[in-house]
Amino acid sequence: MATKLSSLKDLFVHELQDLYSAEQQLVKALPEVMAMASDSKLKAAIKAHIGETQIQIQRLEQCFQILGEKAGGEKCKAMEGLLKEARSFMEEEAEPTVMDAGLIACAQRVEHYEIAGYGTVCTYAKSLGETEVLNLLQETLSEEKKTDEKLTFIAESTVNRKAEK
Amino acid sequence: MATKLSSLKDLFVHELQDLYSAEQQLVKALPEVMAMASDSKLKAAIKAHIGETQIQIQRLEQCFQILGEKAGGEKCKAMEGLLKEARSFMEEEAEPTVMDAGLIACAQRVEHYEIAGYGTVCTYAKSLGETEVLNLLQETLSEEKKTDEKLTFIAESTVNRKAEK
Repeated sequence: MATKLSSLKDLFVHELQDLYSAEQQLVKALPEVMAMASDSKLKAAIKAHIGETQIQIQRLEQCFQILGEKAGGEKCKAMEGLLKEARSFMEEEAEPTVMDAGLIACAQRVEHYEIAGYGTVCTYAKSLGETEVLNLLQETLSEEKKTDEKLTFIAESTVNRKAEK
Repeated sequence: MATKLSSLKDLFVHELQDLYSAEQQLVKALPEVMAMASDSKLKAAIKAHIGETQIQIQRLEQCFQILGEKAGGEKCKAMEGLLKEARSFMEEEAEPTVMDAGLIACAQRVEHYEIAGYGTVCTYAKSLGETEVLNLLQETLSEEKKTDEKLTFIAESTVNRKAEK
């Protein structure tokens, strides 16, 4: 077939490239988000996630290498939109505690984008029998889920309560 | 305080307006996605979700009414990006089975955006003691999670297998 996306393998590579672009956009934006945060636990969580994101990018590069495919591809428009929304929120006039709560809301939307994205490519890797790639992707998926849970914890235990006042 | 977002309540309304815009953009886009789908189960799932989305919009309107706040607000830039990505995928040259798998991938990203968004506003509603609003939002959150699970099932049981060939 002469179609561009003729098999699940083609779609798999397409989706990995989308995630690669998403992570690269995110790693550039996270320091801005960290700078806007006031709560020390939130700042620390974002800082930790910058380090994780750098490793997640390297993992994707390993995946491309194993698959014999190029990294790169188009800019992920969804992450572009998510970050546009986050930046527009950061321009709002807000009490620092309310800003923190809103930053968590933005960050959890980003985490869920990645949970959906990595969930999808894990399913493809399983179907295609790409075990080595699957292991790498599962590691990232589990980190994204943990980050999401950590953000929920910070919101419920501290930030939202402070913002209520 | 003269700040625009001075309390969790302000942020709550801001987030509800974001979801209202997101759902409205989505309900317009879903028929296009349904038209691109080939698998009958996938088509049926999207059709069902169009109906659900219409009800979710009405639920948000009820929330605004209960809170004495206006619906409306800014266009949700994140959903705009998610749909831009989905539309750009729909323009790809792809085998119908691969297109179906990719449509599910896009739809699950959208569902996860909503899961994160409704998860956030449920937490706020709980903190603010807005029980009536909370019940409405939890109903939607549970529908979004079920839709996500249904899509995973269709992908794993049928669509991805067809796309492998």
